[in-house]
Amino acid sequence: MSTPAYLDLQRRHERLHHLGHMQHIVEWDQSANMPSKGSDARSLALAEMGGLLHQLATDPALKALLEAAEQEPLSEHQRANLREMQRVWRSANALPQRLVEAKSLARSRCEHAWRTQRQANDWAGYLVNLREVVKLAREEAACLSDATGLSRYDALMDQYEPGMRASEVDRVFGDLRSWLPGLIADVQVRQAQELLIRPQGPFPKAAQRALGLDAMRLMGFDFEAGRLDESVHPFCGGVPEDVRMTTRYREDDFLPSLMGTIHETGHGRYEQNRPRDWITQPVSQARSMGLHESQSLSFEMQLGSHPAFAQLLSPLVIQHLGAQPAFEPGNLNRLLTRVQPGLIRVDADEVTYPAHVILRYEIERPLMEGLIECEDIPALWDTKMMELLGRDTRGNFKDGCMQDVHWGGGAFGYFPCYTLGAMYAAQWFATLRRSVPDLDTQIAAGNLQPVFDWLNANIWSQGSRWETPELVRRASGEALNPAHFKAHLQARYLA
Amino acid sequence: MSTPAYLDLQRRHERLHHLGHMQHIVEWDQSANMPSKGSDARSLALAEMGGLLHQLATDPALKALLEAAEQEPLSEHQRANLREMQRVWRSANALPQRLVEAKSLARSRCEHAWRTQRQANDWAGYLVNLREVVKLAREEAACLSDATGLSRYDALMDQYEPGMRASEVDRVFGDLRSWLPGLIADVQVRQAQELLIRPQGPFPKAAQRALGLDAMRLMGFDFEAGRLDESVHPFCGGVPEDVRMTTRYREDDFLPSLMGTIHETGHGRYEQNRPRDWITQPVSQARSMGLHESQSLSFEMQLGSHPAFAQLLSPLVIQHLGAQPAFEPGNLNRLLTRVQPGLIRVDADEVTYPAHVILRYEIERPLMEGLIECEDIPALWDTKMMELLGRDTRGNFKDGCMQDVHWGGGAFGYFPCYTLGAMYAAQWFATLRRSVPDLDTQIAAGNLQPVFDWLNANIWSQGSRWETPELVRRASGEALNPAHFKAHLQARYLA
Ligand SMILES: [Zn+2]
Ligand SMILES: [Zn+2]
Repeated sequence: MSTPAYLDLQRRHERLHHLGHMQHIVEWDQSANMPSKGSDARSLALAEMGGLLHQLATDPALKALLEAAEQEPLSEHQRANLREMQRVWRSANALPQRLVEAKSLARSRCEHAWRTQRQANDWAGYLVNLREVVKLAREEAACLSDATGLSRYDALMDQYEPGMRASEVDRVFGDLRSWLPGLIADVQVRQAQELLIRPQGPFPKAAQRALGLDAMRLMGFDFEAGRLDESVHPFCGGVPEDVRMTTRYREDDFLPSLMGTIHETGHGRYEQNRPRDWITQPVSQARSMGLHESQSLSFEMQLGSHPAFAQLLSPLVIQHLGAQPAFEPGNLNRLLTRVQPGLIRVDADEVTYPAHVILRYEIERPLMEGLIECEDIPALWDTKMMELLGRDTRGNFKDGCMQDVHWGGGAFGYFPCYTLGAMYAAQWFATLRRSVPDLDTQIAAGNLQPVFDWLNANIWSQGSRWETPELVRRASGEALNPAHFKAHLQARYLA
Repeated sequence: MSTPAYLDLQRRHERLHHLGHMQHIVEWDQSANMPSKGSDARSLALAEMGGLLHQLATDPALKALLEAAEQEPLSEHQRANLREMQRVWRSANALPQRLVEAKSLARSRCEHAWRTQRQANDWAGYLVNLREVVKLAREEAACLSDATGLSRYDALMDQYEPGMRASEVDRVFGDLRSWLPGLIADVQVRQAQELLIRPQGPFPKAAQRALGLDAMRLMGFDFEAGRLDESVHPFCGGVPEDVRMTTRYREDDFLPSLMGTIHETGHGRYEQNRPRDWITQPVSQARSMGLHESQSLSFEMQLGSHPAFAQLLSPLVIQHLGAQPAFEPGNLNRLLTRVQPGLIRVDADEVTYPAHVILRYEIERPLMEGLIECEDIPALWDTKMMELLGRDTRGNFKDGCMQDVHWGGGAFGYFPCYTLGAMYAAQWFATLRRSVPDLDTQIAAGNLQPVFDWLNANIWSQGSRWETPELVRRASGEALNPAHFKAHLQARYLA
């Protein structure tokens, strides 16, 4: 069986993989380490590198190679790899080199300035850079739309969640909007009667870091293939063989960093356990950002906020931060499941979180469709925050529309993935409970292995072998079904 | 004035500069951060990147461009830049792509394994990887020799110290060998009568780090354009806009880390102050490794071990490590100038240091010339250690021939630069004292600015504008003159 075109493509993707390694480590460094005066040179370096990778991914020889490989006798895995190669090629070819380099430059500059501008609540300063990023993202959307025949927003979203469409998001988010505000209110009424003991700080950074590392160990993170550092905006980056997680610490509250770390560990283990035999190839990639988020939320919400899990967390918290009445398992779980409409998405509880996502979806979609401009964002933000969560953000850009790195980083169409991920995670655990009926007892006993095994077998080890609907069906026996998320919230918060 | 070929070359070097930025940051990360399982993927990524840079540096179009640029009307600076472009081109073209990639792979593997093998005193394990690196380095030497007409060792050394030849090293080191053993003995006799108070440890890592950072501030390091981290083997890497220094800490002794940090700060400031208008171009590069070492040794030895400097260091040491009789300025200076033949090059005092370099030069040169093999290194090391420093290293590979990263990293022909650097540094200070007669009083008063100003004007800001002999003559009014080093040692240690 001769497959010269396929093998040529495979070698080219190996090369892209190795050069991508350079890019991922340098991007991590930019967020975790880089001092301020390094910014301009770094932006230029990343733009040059991005342009070079784009050049390799759009080599004119690829078209004929992809067509020839279609005719070659390939295994099922190789065929899935070829399908993903074609997807990478289509999206790379949709964008002119000039645009790729200009966007890389604009986002590096915007993100870097954002670090200080956010602290200073400097919307006017941020706006200057954001306008440039939005202008280039719209050009990108137009190019992707031309290449795929999708609408502009769908074309952007398809990069993060292949196959997902705004019409489907509208359907799912429409359903959510119908019952979420009522559920938030019901939960708040119910929780108003609970006795809740607040932890007494301060909590030194070094102790929080040690606690976070122990939580990562509990969640099975492989420290020989990754590390935990600090950055302004927590993320999980690096490469599968060397995963770079970040967190940030507040001395007055340890829970945001602890639960954020458990969240990123879910992303980290997905990456650490992608199919190793195919690691240089597109078929080994994580399937989608929504599925990625389903892993972090399986860790942070399905497990992390589970009443039985508090029995595992409590001794670790006491070990690193000292004993307090607030650290008793029951109270710890009440803290972790406390529903409180707030300003910050990344600190939100799992019940109000979807409201933050709906708000952003309802702004970024018209922004990309050219129906609104960057200047319109703050007023829309204020209105929707009041409408969805009843909170006033007027004049508070820092904790309002400047809180996220996504838009300044040019990532439009990403936000829906968070709530799709929460829904997938609920669906995974509904499935898992059917095959492991005593799951809650196992968790309380500290045996998380059945969870890790199921996620590894059904998600991590599958990479991009199947398209998303097929992966979801194979894992759970049905298509994405938001009813599991609703049932999960009702069972946990209103039962 | 039309200079199309020159401008094309300039743009190509800009590109190499930006991609080199990626490589420098990733190499720093490899030493400072990378966990063990990341090693293979990192080696492959760096090899791919090295191959790519080599491909760009050997583009067949370059030959004609370089020839055409010769005929264009260039400014004096542009002409110096073109000369350096030609040097880069000659050395890149001497090496086949295959060899560049193979060497990058072999050195990454060897260096990574060395980290644990050194700890385990595992010479047999190290030897397997070292043989491969030596084989490739010899191939490299042969290629460079063919391209330049130099001998193999000269061709290797020319990469680090352009223009320097083994015959010149023999002359200078021959002179050294004639008086150094006598001087070491004289100093030891004299110091035997000194009262010396040893510092009482342990010294916690966090306090040592804070002390090191303050020492860097004293030496003028720009923390907005660089940082200090940890690695097994201290070095100064990164890029001029973002210098990455590393150190290592021993809790029983703070002086190696403190003085090592001051040393690397000298390298760091050279990099931070290279000509900024030309930063993307070869003419902005540091002139040579010997000149680089002359900066670190100006900081560590000429200044750091100066009796007046101890008056600046003493309060910092007391601030971070608490008061001790050993930290009194006079005693601190006696500690820093204590001459003691030891096993470890990087911990050696400035009087015995050249002996460590001579030993390595006398091994690496015949190794590259094919006169000896890797297996012969330990016995030669043992013999020469006894001969030069009277120390027994038999069976102690860890503190013997496995102590340095250079050979495993494929850097043969580098070691002489350390002692050339010490000689240049003595020559700079002899010059400086002529123009600032009260220099010692200034130093004692904490005014180091005259030193920084002189180094900046004569070395840092000059980049590669002049070839080394011309730079040395312009800075000091004469050619490299080892008499200054001898006079410096006699004045400091025997006056
Ligand atoms: Zn996430
Ligand atoms: Zn040095």
